[in-house]
Amino acid sequence: MRHRVPDDVVVEEPMQIRLDDHLVATTMRTPGHDYELAVGFCFTDGALGGAPVLEVRYCATGSASSTEFNVVSVSTGHRAAVPTPRLTTTTSSCGLCGSVSLDELQDRLPPLTGLAEFAPDVLAAVVAAAVSRQTLFSITGGVHAAAAFDLDGTIELVREDIGRHNAVDKVIGRLLLDGRLPASRLGLYVSGRASFEIVQKAWAAGFAAVVAVSAPSSLAVEAARVAGLLLAGFARPGRMNIYSPA
Amino acid sequence: MRHRVPDDVVVEEPMQIRLDDHLVATTMRTPGHDYELAVGFCFTDGALGGAPVLEVRYCATGSASSTEFNVVSVSTGHRAAVPTPRLTTTTSSCGLCGSVSLDELQDRLPPLTGLAEFAPDVLAAVVAAAVSRQTLFSITGGVHAAAAFDLDGTIELVREDIGRHNAVDKVIGRLLLDGRLPASRLGLYVSGRASFEIVQKAWAAGFAAVVAVSAPSSLAVEAARVAGLLLAGFARPGRMNIYSPA
Repeated sequence: MRHRVPDDVVVEEPMQIRLDDHLVATTMRTPGHDYELAVGFCFTDGALGGAPVLEVRYCATGSASSTEFNVVSVSTGHRAAVPTPRLTTTTSSCGLCGSVSLDELQDRLPPLTGLAEFAPDVLAAVVAAAVSRQTLFSITGGVHAAAAFDLDGTIELVREDIGRHNAVDKVIGRLLLDGRLPASRLGLYVSGRASFEIVQKAWAAGFAAVVAVSAPSSLAVEAARVAGLLLAGFARPGRMNIYSPA
Repeated sequence: MRHRVPDDVVVEEPMQIRLDDHLVATTMRTPGHDYELAVGFCFTDGALGGAPVLEVRYCATGSASSTEFNVVSVSTGHRAAVPTPRLTTTTSSCGLCGSVSLDELQDRLPPLTGLAEFAPDVLAAVVAAAVSRQTLFSITGGVHAAAAFDLDGTIELVREDIGRHNAVDKVIGRLLLDGRLPASRLGLYVSGRASFEIVQKAWAAGFAAVVAVSAPSSLAVEAARVAGLLLAGFARPGRMNIYSPA
């Protein structure tokens, strides 16, 4: 009954993301579309601010060591602010809550306006359309996907990664590099659950809707309502739950 | 076809983890078993080192604001080293790879020895046993679970969280608080995929085996082989894949 010959496994490798030579983050990711991931992360994280992306490159300096392809630098010609590390070792604050996280997000991101409206049938059909495009998933069974879809439900772009957040950043990075943000006439599909961070990224990119295969969290629902974006979960043909608008 | 009344959603709130008054991390988690999460995180992250846990408490200082229950302090009487933030803003290194991550882990964690051996039937039956204990999942459909099981396949402990890593840390924190680490006669069940970080946590806690419902990543497989722990994926009655040992 045991199968000792492993099936294909999805690759996971660390990648460092740098912005104008400062470290922004190290993430475990599935290699591929690394530039999109780096740009998307810097954008959705707020590190990019409104600065233009002038260049994206691997850290490689001439030699051909493959490990140099795990460091990606995004350059804005130093127009972006120096990124702050997300953790500080000492702080005296006592008290932290989801609504504070949401308040911080509202300080950075205005409510979305002028969003396209998706027909319910289109939203409910997106999951089947996206799954048929998840090539890594069909091979490994161990990878998440994100996709951008248009008002007809056509899948414009699919990205896969061991991390759901990374897959979303790859989609958003591609749209940014193509000059297509804010994505007010596009929807974002995610293969798993919709957490606060997923909605945060969708909000930053200005998507009109988020469709998740599985459930959203309480804070994801709150964030979507504040942002003014449509949030659907458990979407499948003929059925889905709408969590936002209320 | 649209269901506008949301089903129950899983709660997601940020929690700050402090060690001897220094911030270790802020994580988005499902409230509940917060002390276990804080202790488990400090332990698996390496921040605790070998220091004893003398006290765990909420930051609450007398008033009853619920937001004060989102900050948990672990005290070792300052016997643990001051935690370093995970990100530094400037570093000159170029080159990063999974084997380096693995090397760093090996510097901190010795290979596991004296581990109990699990019968294949026991491992394959664990998923069904664990799923029947996932109470939040059955309500919300949007939560991950981790569990500790013994040589008979009996589920000793189940913890659920919106984050798979958090669920694992809650299980490990409970075992640590009960003086049951290293868990050399226990297996760890995880409801989703097995990433590098999950195997890292299992290794730190000294589990004999990791059983995942879904797929492991390449680096998770490598780490499990170096650690000497059994790693099974796609486990279900009568079938599973063994990825480690090779």
